Amino acid sequence: MKILVINGPNLNMLGHRDSAHYGTSTLDDIYQLLESTYPDHQFDFYQSNHEGEIIERLHQVVTSGGPHAIMINAGAYSHTSVAIRDALSIIKLPKVEVHLSNIHAREEFRHHSLTGGVCNGIIAGFGAQSYLLGVRALTELVK
Amino acid sequence: MKILVINGPNLNMLGHRDSAHYGTSTLDDIYQLLESTYPDHQFDFYQSNHEGEIIERLHQVVTSGGPHAIMINAGAYSHTSVAIRDALSIIKLPKVEVHLSNIHAREEFRHHSLTGGVCNGIIAGFGAQSYLLGVRALTELVK
Amino acid sequence: MKILVINGPNLNMLGHRDSAHYGTSTLDDIYQLLESTYPDHQFDFYQSNHEGEIIERLHQVVTSGGPHAIMINAGAYSHTSVAIRDALSIIKLPKVEVHLSNIHAREEFRHHSLTGGVCNGIIAGFGAQSYLLGVRALTELVK
Amino acid sequence: MKILVINGPNLNMLGHRDSAHYGTSTLDDIYQLLESTYPDHQFDFYQSNHEGEIIERLHQVVTSGGPHAIMINAGAYSHTSVAIRDALSIIKLPKVEVHLSNIHAREEFRHHSLTGGVCNGIIAGFGAQSYLLGVRALTELVK
Amino acid sequence: MKILVINGPNLNMLGHRDSAHYGTSTLDDIYQLLESTYPDHQFDFYQSNHEGEIIERLHQVVTSGGPHAIMINAGAYSHTSVAIRDALSIIKLPKVEVHLSNIHAREEFRHHSLTGGVCNGIIAGFGAQSYLLGVRALTELVK
Amino acid sequence: MKILVINGPNLNMLGHRDSAHYGTSTLDDIYQLLESTYPDHQFDFYQSNHEGEIIERLHQVVTSGGPHAIMINAGAYSHTSVAIRDALSIIKLPKVEVHLSNIHAREEFRHHSLTGGVCNGIIAGFGAQSYLLGVRALTELVK
Amino acid sequence: MKILVINGPNLNMLGHRDSAHYGTSTLDDIYQLLESTYPDHQFDFYQSNHEGEIIERLHQVVTSGGPHAIMINAGAYSHTSVAIRDALSIIKLPKVEVHLSNIHAREEFRHHSLTGGVCNGIIAGFGAQSYLLGVRALTELVK
Amino acid sequence: MKILVINGPNLNMLGHRDSAHYGTSTLDDIYQLLESTYPDHQFDFYQSNHEGEIIERLHQVVTSGGPHAIMINAGAYSHTSVAIRDALSIIKLPKVEVHLSNIHAREEFRHHSLTGGVCNGIIAGFGAQSYLLGVRALTELVK
Amino acid sequence: MKILVINGPNLNMLGHRDSAHYGTSTLDDIYQLLESTYPDHQFDFYQSNHEGEIIERLHQVVTSGGPHAIMINAGAYSHTSVAIRDALSIIKLPKVEVHLSNIHAREEFRHHSLTGGVCNGIIAGFGAQSYLLGVRALTELVK
Amino acid sequence: MKILVINGPNLNMLGHRDSAHYGTSTLDDIYQLLESTYPDHQFDFYQSNHEGEIIERLHQVVTSGGPHAIMINAGAYSHTSVAIRDALSIIKLPKVEVHLSNIHAREEFRHHSLTGGVCNGIIAGFGAQSYLLGVRALTELVK
Amino acid sequence: MKILVINGPNLNMLGHRDSAHYGTSTLDDIYQLLESTYPDHQFDFYQSNHEGEIIERLHQVVTSGGPHAIMINAGAYSHTSVAIRDALSIIKLPKVEVHLSNIHAREEFRHHSLTGGVCNGIIAGFGAQSYLLGVRALTELVK
Amino acid sequence: MKILVINGPNLNMLGHRDSAHYGTSTLDDIYQLLESTYPDHQFDFYQSNHEGEIIERLHQVVTSGGPHAIMINAGAYSHTSVAIRDALSIIKLPKVEVHLSNIHAREEFRHHSLTGGVCNGIIAGFGAQSYLLGVRALTELVK
Repeated sequence: MKILVINGPNLNMLGHRDSAHYGTSTLDDIYQLLESTYPDHQFDFYQSNHEGEIIERLHQVVTSGGPHAIMINAGAYSHTSVAIRDALSIIKLPKVEVHLSNIHAREEFRHHSLTGGVCNGIIAGFGAQSYLLGVRALTELVK
Repeated sequence: MKILVINGPNLNMLGHRDSAHYGTSTLDDIYQLLESTYPDHQFDFYQSNHEGEIIERLHQVVTSGGPHAIMINAGAYSHTSVAIRDALSIIKLPKVEVHLSNIHAREEFRHHSLTGGVCNGIIAGFGAQSYLLGVRALTELVK
Repeated sequence: MKILVINGPNLNMLGHRDSAHYGTSTLDDIYQLLESTYPDHQFDFYQSNHEGEIIERLHQVVTSGGPHAIMINAGAYSHTSVAIRDALSIIKLPKVEVHLSNIHAREEFRHHSLTGGVCNGIIAGFGAQSYLLGVRALTELVK
Repeated sequence: MKILVINGPNLNMLGHRDSAHYGTSTLDDIYQLLESTYPDHQFDFYQSNHEGEIIERLHQVVTSGGPHAIMINAGAYSHTSVAIRDALSIIKLPKVEVHLSNIHAREEFRHHSLTGGVCNGIIAGFGAQSYLLGVRALTELVK
Repeated sequence: MKILVINGPNLNMLGHRDSAHYGTSTLDDIYQLLESTYPDHQFDFYQSNHEGEIIERLHQVVTSGGPHAIMINAGAYSHTSVAIRDALSIIKLPKVEVHLSNIHAREEFRHHSLTGGVCNGIIAGFGAQSYLLGVRALTELVK
Repeated sequence: MKILVINGPNLNMLGHRDSAHYGTSTLDDIYQLLESTYPDHQFDFYQSNHEGEIIERLHQVVTSGGPHAIMINAGAYSHTSVAIRDALSIIKLPKVEVHLSNIHAREEFRHHSLTGGVCNGIIAGFGAQSYLLGVRALTELVK
Repeated sequence: MKILVINGPNLNMLGHRDSAHYGTSTLDDIYQLLESTYPDHQFDFYQSNHEGEIIERLHQVVTSGGPHAIMINAGAYSHTSVAIRDALSIIKLPKVEVHLSNIHAREEFRHHSLTGGVCNGIIAGFGAQSYLLGVRALTELVK
Repeated sequence: MKILVINGPNLNMLGHRDSAHYGTSTLDDIYQLLESTYPDHQFDFYQSNHEGEIIERLHQVVTSGGPHAIMINAGAYSHTSVAIRDALSIIKLPKVEVHLSNIHAREEFRHHSLTGGVCNGIIAGFGAQSYLLGVRALTELVK
Repeated sequence: MKILVINGPNLNMLGHRDSAHYGTSTLDDIYQLLESTYPDHQFDFYQSNHEGEIIERLHQVVTSGGPHAIMINAGAYSHTSVAIRDALSIIKLPKVEVHLSNIHAREEFRHHSLTGGVCNGIIAGFGAQSYLLGVRALTELVK
Repeated sequence: MKILVINGPNLNMLGHRDSAHYGTSTLDDIYQLLESTYPDHQFDFYQSNHEGEIIERLHQVVTSGGPHAIMINAGAYSHTSVAIRDALSIIKLPKVEVHLSNIHAREEFRHHSLTGGVCNGIIAGFGAQSYLLGVRALTELVK
Repeated sequence: MKILVINGPNLNMLGHRDSAHYGTSTLDDIYQLLESTYPDHQFDFYQSNHEGEIIERLHQVVTSGGPHAIMINAGAYSHTSVAIRDALSIIKLPKVEVHLSNIHAREEFRHHSLTGGVCNGIIAGFGAQSYLLGVRALTELVK
Repeated sequence: MKILVINGPNLNMLGHRDSAHYGTSTLDDIYQLLESTYPDHQFDFYQSNHEGEIIERLHQVVTSGGPHAIMINAGAYSHTSVAIRDALSIIKLPKVEVHLSNIHAREEFRHHSLTGGVCNGIIAGFGAQSYLLGVRALTELVK
């Protein structure tokens, strides 16, 4: 099973960000954790700080195929990007949105997720664990 | 490891509710799924349609101890109950909020979670799977 | 024809409440009026001040059957309870919401009805007459 | 007993309108239903798509008398017309607002009724039945 | 000097309306008061309950000329009619909006005036006096 | 091909209105432009300042037939009239809303169009050209 | 007849302020205009830029008497001062609020008047004329 | 003098709650403080986490009498319960709302009190002292 | 123990104000009541209608010392003055806000208190009693 | 005549998107339709999913010239991008915004267009036809 | 070059205020810093806690002249005073608003500046440095 | 001392933009002004119209070091980008936001700055001077 893992803006800086919200793992740590935890899955890791690139990576799924499922942490774009929401809604595969921090426990402008509304579900607040749980959710959805 | 699983209003009616949002499993199906999936965990299942009873079940955790972690699906009370939010915030154990449906993809009054804001994290939209993921999240948090 | 008549919080206090809004009839007066006006109907009268009990009484309709139709005056819960709204939406029988007072002529927080939005219709402002009209509406809906 | 029945904009098009909200009866069907159901009442049926004409028909009640009660379905004007609200508030007779559809179950801009706030009560959601119930309500109010 | 005096919805019912807000004078009383107070002015009195007729009476001013100034009490339409606002804004003569009642001391939906915003000024709250003051204001504006 | 062209309030005053928003053409100029540009189309031109008359002209389409398509510039009523919106939604023919001015570039209360939401599309900001484009759009929709 | 004329903040600067809104008269010009126009009235002119002083000048009316009526142009304080509103509401004499500019034609934060809501009426938009009209209004109210 | 003291949700957990807002006294400590401070008063202490039970305890006051005054700390229900507000408004005895914490210094959703609006007054922010002050207030009100 | 008692705008007019909200006591009555009730306390009474003077009286506490505690009834300024809020927040002594009327039972613009949010607590609705209770609260806080 | 045609995010995916809103044509189909319909025009087609690239393509118009007019479908960025709005407002050529779907008939967050407010006009809801109409509008504007 | 430096409410208390927002310098420290940093400028320092006095100091600039530029830190009045905004807008000299703290990083009610909107620019967040920068900005503006 | 100067969208077009808001200097003019004014500083000038590139340029500061301080004019992204706000908040160096125009004097959607809230301070409205002042502010902050 192949999963496309998309990380949005500032997630390449994990390890440097406020550890109270984001923990101390780097994005590579999370990638390794995913691969070691799910050795039978094949991951396609993708990170971009560009709204447009994230949109285009999602388009590739439609035009070139590849993954059986999408896991996305659109970061700050979750709260502001209608364009990524539109790109996600084109894809008919299982999709899960993950967040490291609990968006409901932070500033009001992070409470709502435009992108999460077009995924199957959302997992937020468990740090790197959110990703592990996301894979598990997708595995079940693909079945 | 002992987990208290609290289900709020109308969740005892699973199987009768709109399957587009809630699936076709009954609450017992979910309980059995939890027990068979996590045979090494001990679950204390609790369901109530009463805001006050849910509050008191949470109080017992403080006064009598028992669980190592809390998993709560407060259902409709997630969106309206400051009182359950206050009860949850007394408990210092790992807490996860789960929802069967994706609250961000439904009516606007379900987009925000008062109770989720005082849990460690929130998992929504995966049907019965949300509970399995919730246990997994708690297991990791307890470690 | 059997009708379940549910009365919510403070309606057991009719006769004591502000007569400008609620009239001078007691709830028993209303019950007798219903029975004497509709001798061929069978009424199951239920009053509770507990959100949870109202929810559970509605659940019984699904699990144990009984009535052919539901008449509910959820009182103050009409304006605040997503949970009762959810319970009502599980039931596929004809449902009517009644109010003694004209909710559109009172405080702004009473203008909108969460529960009325999942009933067939709503009747408000006619005092005890609202109930008689409600039964008539249900009788026609059941046909 | 004489009742003035006022129908507002687009209600002359019943039978052509979306049957999910408005049913399949024509306005004439409703008139005949009213007359056959209440043979002892005298109805003065009035329909207009003009806000100004509805206002003036209401003025006639004050200046020329006639009815013992008013039943009004102001249609879309219920949600927007302060002017009809003002006209209704001049009349001291029993007044009931009726709606074919359940305004609380439709678009948010239909949830509130400016005109209903100055009537004795409101009946909405029962199709042609709303009118029959309205007459019944008025009959009781006139007594 | 010729003044066009436009009265909007329900103002033909003065004498029947709530005297706390509108006083006890009829519209004819006001007309006679205007004529007796300002014998050297020529008044063109116009009342309509129809938004469209008020618009067209304003159009006549542009196309056929006549008055040197406009006094309008658009009544309830002051608060809701963009169309009358647009019609007023076509006319380049002095314009004054008058109200019998103090719109700032009533329901919130009467606090703002769409039509007053395109007049030279507004006079509200003095009963029939508002009209006398309006003429005086216009007389000065025409000079 | 027959097109019903409906113009709302104040559009009969084109030529007198603020040329920055509305240009200098009269409504007759626009009519002639339409006829000379589309000699093979048959136009039924209708203008009214009355909300009720516009509603009724739309009703005639349903009851008496005639046009193959509707072009409407509801003017100020676009922003305030639920009743015209309801009338438009009864008609199943191609419908286009046109505006002379760019409603998104003016006062905030002109940014939203209640009536445009039930047409196939909306064309705004091109002066008399908006009408020519509207016919073209309808011609294609009718095919 | 004695009238207390209160002018609020920045009105002592008339003549220096934006003439499009405030004209070119100074406050003294207005005072002289009042005295020359109404030679039989006695005016008590008061201007202050201090919210507290305006409040206290109003208190004097209650404690020491003097005027038969109050004319106030509270300027910017009209839109923000609950305290002056409270002071005005203590006085049982006729009260009129005047404004030089048309508050409904300016920034949104000037559309509403807290102080005008506790006066008999409001006159706005006629420059110095607003004051002359105000006296006239008060003269009639005192009768 | 007999006072009914009602405590709402989570107040039985005092001693366990966040001491920054709620102090370290238990509810029993507060009860004893009340009794020792006011030995001549008779207290009827009641705590419930159930909205419905609080409503019913208030009903008993009407139906069975007993206290001369009511002191209520409705906790989180102060901010959300129209139903308790309605129950309180039936009682014609002196009523005071107390809060341990200063609701104006916490989250915005705690700034407003639905229940406090139908009491004589409100005392908030003094910890256990709020209750002592509440008794004093009631003692004076009963006189 | 020395208490600085600050009264804001219009409170010097007690006895003249609407007795339904403010009772019939004068401010002097309240001062005497305070002194007779608490003979062992030393009161520094201060009243001003000027926002700036209240701010400066609060500054004196910081610069010159004096009181052990502050009791303030900022009247209308409670709802509008960020500046007094800022002045209060500089003082580290116990502070209590009192109101004669129940601000939660009046106009919506009185429901929130900017100044109360930086005091220890708030007491509202008990007329002159609010002040007596305030002293008691402060006495305890000073201990 | 040369027209720069800019397409924003997700428009390269036409043919894959929800056909109810976007039809079944691909972007290439639209390009060919434009070229075959307007053989005398020269089109410069540009599509980007990157807000920054769209901004820079607009800058080129200013710095390098080229087109006589701009047609833009900024897609989701129409509703969120102040930056593209700013870029468009630098260009003094005729500009038209087009949308395939009727933005007034979709989610509320699509009702307003930030970018359309700085174009000459907007055409929405006609699928590929919107583009043909846009060219026509521009052709006329360029004349 | 002469600069009038106006400081609003509570700024005379610098040194006593929360150092996290306001630093530890006193207002005199800032004055000396200004004079020592800009020995060639002449400063007219003015501080007042009174809205009215600040207004009047601004008026003096118009009536008596003096400064070549204005630097104002209106403190809390920046967020609430339409009256000071009006006074500032009378002055045609260069004007700069300064704040010690970063108003965009504090409570939401400090995010917007009524007074800053009628100055040339705003400098906020640099403590005493904000004043030094303000002088520099004014020096350049005066040139 | 090294300062990274980041300019956001459309700032490369200075000289072409509306001079009323942005002046006539080009960005190069500003760069040269900075270098000639502060010959002892070392500037790293960066401009991008891409949200993602700005984010990444900020990341480089964290990962590769370099500047002692950051000056950013995020242009339109100041008002909409949570992602740049997040990137800025990772950097612990002194940061200042500058704007050429006075954002408080323009459209409401420019009044608030998401990015400015995580900088030390903000300087807006002085054209190219804003940058010079920004460097001065940073120089002091670095000390």
